This record gives sequence, C-alpha cells and structure tokens, in this order.
Amino acid sequence: MTIDLSAVPEGGIGWLSGGGEHADIVLSTRVRLARNLDGIAFTGRAREGERLRVLQMLRDAVPHLPSLRGGVLLRLEDLDVSDRRLLHERHLVSRELAGLDGGATKGGAAVLVGHGHGIMVNEEDHLRLQTVRGGLATRAAIDALLTVDRELGSRLPYAYHEEFGFLTACPTNTGTGLRASVLIHLPGLVLTKEIGKVLSGLQAMGLTYRGLYGEGSEVIGNFFQISNQTTLGRSEDELVEHLQRVVSHVIKREHDARRVMWREAGYIIEDKLWRAYGTLRFARSLTFEEAMNYLSGVRLAVGLQLINGLSVETLNRLLIFSQPAHLGYAEGRVLGEEEANVARARYVREALGAETDQAKH
Amino acid sequence: MTIDLSAVPEGGIGWLSGGGEHADIVLSTRVRLARNLDGIAFTGRAREGERLRVLQMLRDAVPHLPSLRGGVLLRLEDLDVSDRRLLHERHLVSRELAGLDGGATKGGAAVLVGHGHGIMVNEEDHLRLQTVRGGLATRAAIDALLTVDRELGSRLPYAYHEEFGFLTACPTNTGTGLRASVLIHLPGLVLTKEIGKVLSGLQAMGLTYRGLYGEGSEVIGNFFQISNQTTLGRSEDELVEHLQRVVSHVIKREHDARRVMWREAGYIIEDKLWRAYGTLRFARSLTFEEAMNYLSGVRLAVGLQLINGLSVETLNRLLIFSQPAHLGYAEGRVLGEEEANVARARYVREALGAETDQAKH
Repeated sequence: MTIDLSAVPEGGIGWLSGGGEHADIVLSTRVRLARNLDGIAFTGRAREGERLRVLQMLRDAVPHLPSLRGGVLLRLEDLDVSDRRLLHERHLVSRELAGLDGGATKGGAAVLVGHGHGIMVNEEDHLRLQTVRGGLATRAAIDALLTVDRELGSRLPYAYHEEFGFLTACPTNTGTGLRASVLIHLPGLVLTKEIGKVLSGLQAMGLTYRGLYGEGSEVIGNFFQISNQTTLGRSEDELVEHLQRVVSHVIKREHDARRVMWREAGYIIEDKLWRAYGTLRFARSLTFEEAMNYLSGVRLAVGLQLINGLSVETLNRLLIFSQPAHLGYAEGRVLGEEEANVARARYVREALGAETDQAKH
Repeated sequence: MTIDLSAVPEGGIGWLSGGGEHADIVLSTRVRLARNLDGIAFTGRAREGERLRVLQMLRDAVPHLPSLRGGVLLRLEDLDVSDRRLLHERHLVSRELAGLDGGATKGGAAVLVGHGHGIMVNEEDHLRLQTVRGGLATRAAIDALLTVDRELGSRLPYAYHEEFGFLTACPTNTGTGLRASVLIHLPGLVLTKEIGKVLSGLQAMGLTYRGLYGEGSEVIGNFFQISNQTTLGRSEDELVEHLQRVVSHVIKREHDARRVMWREAGYIIEDKLWRAYGTLRFARSLTFEEAMNYLSGVRLAVGLQLINGLSVETLNRLLIFSQPAHLGYAEGRVLGEEEANVARARYVREALGAETDQAKH
C-alpha cells in the first residue's frame, strides 16, 4: 500500500506553519506520555495476539474521544518501507516502530495521527501519546495532551501503581511517563563556541540533548533536541515548567551570542551566511548534511534580518521535505543516494527561488 | 596627479570587448618588440639625462606616426602609486617600470597608450612596443605592431647589428626583440589533470608559460600566459606562426578535455560550477584568488552553455576590474585588503546580477 498523505490531518506536520513563540529559534515543542494497558504484557514480551488486542482496544476507544476526531490510523505492516521512512521523517513514528533498524515491522504496530496529536501503538510501551506544537509551547502542548490522555484513560485500563505512577517498560519513564522536548536552533552558541558550556549546564539541570535526527545521532545544522531525562517523582506541570524555564534561558543565551557575534565579526558572518544561501540557490547536488548546514546558515540569516522574504514556515518545510523519503515521495519512486542529492538540490533551489525572487536581495 | 582614464584610448583595454577567434578560451594575444636607441646607454646603465633624452625623442617622433594618432603619454613619476598599479593591472606597464617592486619610479619612465598599442619608455629596453588583441590573433597583432615599429624606426635611430639583429639589454631578446604571448583559460585540462603533459609539451616546443599576473607568479583561476622563449635566429613571422600553431593545438586539447569531463562527470562539474556562480552572486567578501577561481568556474560554465546570458566581455571585465587598484579607483580611494575584499564581492555580485537577472537560470 502507498500512503495517502492527503488523508492524514495536516500531513501530521501542522506545527510546520511556524506559529508559536520564538518560532524562528524553537522549531517545535513535543510532549509524549507513555501508557500501558493493565493485564497485557509489555510490548517487548507480548505475543502477536496481545499486540493485536492492544491495537483493537485503541481502535474501539478512538471513536468516543473528541480530541482525536478526524484522526487516521495507519498500520505500519501495510506500508512500504519508503512510506514508513516518510512517517519517521515527520517524527510521527520511531525508527523501531517503523522497522527501520533492520528489524521487521511487528504485527499490531500502528500510528494514529490526529490534529496535532499522535499515538504510537505497540512501541516500547503499548501506547505513546504525543502532541507537537510549533515554537516554544510546553504549556499548550501538555494541556492538549493531558486532554487526550484523560479521554483515553476513561476508556482504557491504564497500568498504574499508587506509589510509582504510570508503569512503563523502561523504568526511566515510570512516574508521569512524560517526555517533553523542544527542537531548537542554536547557531549563535555554536559559532561563538559557547555551546559546550550551555549543554553541560543542561545536564546539570536534569535535561539532556541530542541531534535533530534519531537517538544518539550527531548534531547537524546546529539543531538540538533538548528534553527532560527523568520523570519519576515530579508532576507533569513541574516537568514542563522546568523545561520551559531552562529553554527560555537558552534562547536568551542564543540571542546574546548572536549579538556578540554580529558586533565582533558581522561582516565575516554576513559573508558566510550569504554564501550558504548562494550555494543552496545554485547547487545541483546536495548531501543531506550539507543541506542542513547551509539551511542552518539561511535560518540564522533570516533571524539576523540579513535575508528577507523567507517565512519560518518555508524554513521548516525545507528541513522536513529535503529528507530522502520525502524527496522520493515527491518524485514517486525510491531514490538512490546520488539521485536524492540531485533531487534535494532541485527542491531546495526551487523552494528558495520561489520565495526570494520576489523579495529583495 | 590622478589619472584620467577617460582620456586614455579605450582605457588601454580595447581587447576586453571579446572579439577575435576563440575569445571564450583565449582572452588576449599580446606581441611586443624591444627596441633601443643607438648611441644611448641601455636603461639599466643610463643616467637620468639619457633617459629623459629617450623620452624626448619619442615625444618628438609620435606626432608624425599615423598608427599612434590619439595616443596619450603618461609619465609614471607624475602618478600616485595607486594609478601606477592600475596601469599595471591593465598590463600597460610592467611592475618594474611602475616602481611597484619597492624600487622608486625612475625619471623618464613613461607609457604611451594608443588604440590597441602601447609603448613603455625606459623599461629594461628604451622602448617596448606592444599590441594587444582580443582572442587568438597573432597575425593581426604582429601586423599592427610591425606598422608601429616601421613608422617609429623611420624617425628614431634603432640600435641594430647586421648579424644579431635588434640589440637589447637582455640577450634573450636580441634578434627580433619579439615576445608574443596569449592569455588562455584551461580549466578542462586542469580538471582532467592533463595540464602537466600539455605544459611540458610547450617547453619542448620552445614556448614557456606563467600565471596570469606578474613574472613567475603562480597560476590562479586556470589562466595561463603562453609565450615564446627565444627570439634570435627566427623571423617575426616564424615566431608568431609557431605560437599560433601550438596554441591552436592546446585549444583543441582543452575542448577535448571538456568533452571527456562532461561525459564522465557532467553532474559533478555542473554542481561545482553552479556553486561557484552562487558564491559569486551572494558572497559579501572575496579574496582576489577566490574571485579568480570562481570566475574561472563561471567562464567554463558559459563555455559549456550551462550558464547563458553572460558575455565574454563581461567575463573579461570581471577579471580586470576585480583587481585591487581597479576596485580602489572605482571607490575613489585606496582600499585596505579587507575593504578590497568587500568591494570586490559587491562589484562581482552586481556585475553578474545585472547580466543574469534578465537571463534564465
């Protein structure tokens, strides 16, 4: 089966449109809750029959949940690997659930995509509820997600322990089961070499970070995911407020770094960023990593008001749509690496050209 | 005194306009004759009075020479160093004559600039007559120059020896006193790594080469000056015909190299050349060497018809006008190195933008 993205609410990427506070620096805020059903073995130990039972229970519940109205359920085993990659590139499913790490897709693996919400089914936990918002919006995201959670919990028997809270497959998630993260762009801190200090500061405050793509992936394009590390012993409110506070501070540091950088090496930065733009506007082949790095430069240039006429939505869209599965989807076939590089260059060139040919430069 | 370039015929760079055969590959053909006046010590040993006498003798002769009508005589000691640099960047005077190598300008040092011709006065030889044409045009250049030479010789007593021919300060010039050279762009041979073979071939055939700027300067931007090495024992016709023949062969080799390169790595080349163009279109600071290298890429892209709408004249003009003294002349003041890099980027950006914004890309 080939996926029909037009049937999926906002393609699962409504956050792209670039609303929300600090949307030029914080791409998205993402919160998820890990939930398991009472009396069924955790996914890692569950037999196929149990996994299918989890899926069926969710299916039965969904029609009764106002917050998930209009949602679409996609069973991963029905999808080609390229479509599963596409969902992963939209951060709707994990690599594991999509069977992208060599392992096959397991029976019962599915994802429900609603308006700004999603539920992964039979991932490490039976259900992983997530909400994504554009910009820095931990409060709005957690409020929306807790509504989904409340509605779902009233229909399904969650595994819950009076003392520990929600039970999860991995002990680090036990408690609230909450993971809250922001995807943030920190080129100023990287260029001024202050990023190391900031990142160690995060860890000292119980937060962790990784690169834009996948677990433990290296940081490219100066995009960082910052998230909470533990969940036990604190309330959802405390967790998201802590993240919001720390990230607000990081944003301030980023702005400071940009100011210093601009004052002390403005013309070097200006040259570097315009060259990045020029390369994206004219290159005929771009690796993903190159594209991310140059797009990081262009995003910074927009933030510094060097380049006008490029919306945050376009900048966000470029990041998502220049990934391999997205390029293949646009071309209607699976692309080899070199073909993808050529298609990526064409896509980026045209997308930037369309918005800036009208704008002054 | 500040130089008034508008008074100089075609600014001394009529060849820029890009006429002539193979003008996309051969920028210019240059021939010069070394002449000395009988009974006056060679410049290296001449006292100031003798040098001034040489200058006066030329001054008296010029009004009677049809081929030099409209020429302008510039005395180098009257000019600021930045203007002398400007003349050097136009290849109208040598570094030595312009006093750019630390030595001061000597009394009597001058240059006469006519339509396509020039005469350096009190360089290594008393008089160095030169003609420059666009493209590969050794025949036209030598014919024009021999006319100047004949007219001048009928007015001035040349130092001439029945057996050796024209006497010159350096024995390598004795005989015809002719040096013929072409400025040629060989990116295909450089990129396919065949240039080494071609250059050794030149030497085996009595020719020599150097980079675009100055004696013994390194090659940048894939621009080479190819010229004859000795002049004794051969006629002017033989010398220029030999150069013409060898250069025609080199041009053929360059075309072959471009064809091979395009067939075997077309998409890599395409990407590389468009990136060069993109960098030139948007960079805010460019060193001279960078500019030459990227302009070499753009010139190749025009030759391969990847980029349309850029004339050979514009490509030639970019090489000349992005040199430091030219940038300073345009800004009306002497520029520091960083200022020159910024001015260069602006000039190149605007020049390319003006021609290609109307063209498709």
